[in-house]
Amino acid sequence: MSRLIEELKKLPGVGSKSAQRLAFHILRSDEADAQGLSDAIRDVKAKLHLCSICNNITDVDPCVYCSSATRNQRLVCVVEEPTNIASIEKTRNYSGVYHVLHGSLSPLHGVGPEHLRLSNLTRRIDSGEVDEVIVATNPTVEGEATAVYISRLIKRPGVKVTRIATGIPAGSDIEYADEVTMTKAIEGRREL
Amino acid sequence: MSRLIEELKKLPGVGSKSAQRLAFHILRSDEADAQGLSDAIRDVKAKLHLCSICNNITDVDPCVYCSSATRNQRLVCVVEEPTNIASIEKTRNYSGVYHVLHGSLSPLHGVGPEHLRLSNLTRRIDSGEVDEVIVATNPTVEGEATAVYISRLIKRPGVKVTRIATGIPAGSDIEYADEVTMTKAIEGRREL
Repeated sequence: MSRLIEELKKLPGVGSKSAQRLAFHILRSDEADAQGLSDAIRDVKAKLHLCSICNNITDVDPCVYCSSATRNQRLVCVVEEPTNIASIEKTRNYSGVYHVLHGSLSPLHGVGPEHLRLSNLTRRIDSGEVDEVIVATNPTVEGEATAVYISRLIKRPGVKVTRIATGIPAGSDIEYADEVTMTKAIEGRREL
Repeated sequence: MSRLIEELKKLPGVGSKSAQRLAFHILRSDEADAQGLSDAIRDVKAKLHLCSICNNITDVDPCVYCSSATRNQRLVCVVEEPTNIASIEKTRNYSGVYHVLHGSLSPLHGVGPEHLRLSNLTRRIDSGEVDEVIVATNPTVEGEATAVYISRLIKRPGVKVTRIATGIPAGSDIEYADEVTMTKAIEGRREL
């Protein structure tokens, strides 16, 4: 029991109290549930790995996006984390593929370009497989720095590099916009 | 006393209890404060009116923006309410002038184009005083409908009509973006 509590405490956001509560819950749950959780934890490490093309987390290689015949394989959206793909898929409006960096540049935290997974992206671009790269890193300081770095790294004749729009969120009110967002919304205005 | 309470109750968000509390506060406050409030209320109606050029609330006509020599009088930003001007001024990056609609199209609430203050905008454009109109109505259903209506109304050769960007707010995370905002952020991407 104390071994389980110790292991659970290693999870982020789980302290001694929570670990104890979780451990007792597992103890009280039926055999199948406990076995299911145990197997799921083992399998996630054993079966999931990164897609060799786009670095997305996947159980098949290449991943579902990279191997899809209905997707535009020449349009690549660069995101920081695998979870960002879900946000973009939710829109049901994007039909290209992805590239996951697994991080963003942050010199203060010691994250340099060498810590981002960029080599297979430049390889794809150098072999002429890509028409446009949409840089969809977050509009934070780190995300913007990463976007600038990537655009310099991958700019080639014939390859368009674009950045998603920063602006007022849909359904929101101009009154709630902060200065930076409002500035970017005016700078990024488009002809009607 | 009961007349004051009745008058205060007419204010938005002020019920019987609040009106009573406000009335007793005024009763207890010193002569100068009460006189100051009374004068301020009278003056706001007597001295403030709409700018004849841009419909902004002002005590001089034309307003400070419309009479400014340092502002670009040929760049007009269309907003729904006078308060929106403050949001845009906060950015310290906009040097054009404004046009206040005092509302947005909302057929469900019976607000049609005839309820918006548009006549002095079209007059300004027809007399060739404007190079670009930035439509900065809110990115809501009503604001977008108003933007489309205005762009059709004022489009002339030589007059650029633009719309502020809808997208992820600066400093935010893609994970928190709703579907519509994410879609607009991708649609509105710009070359890096």
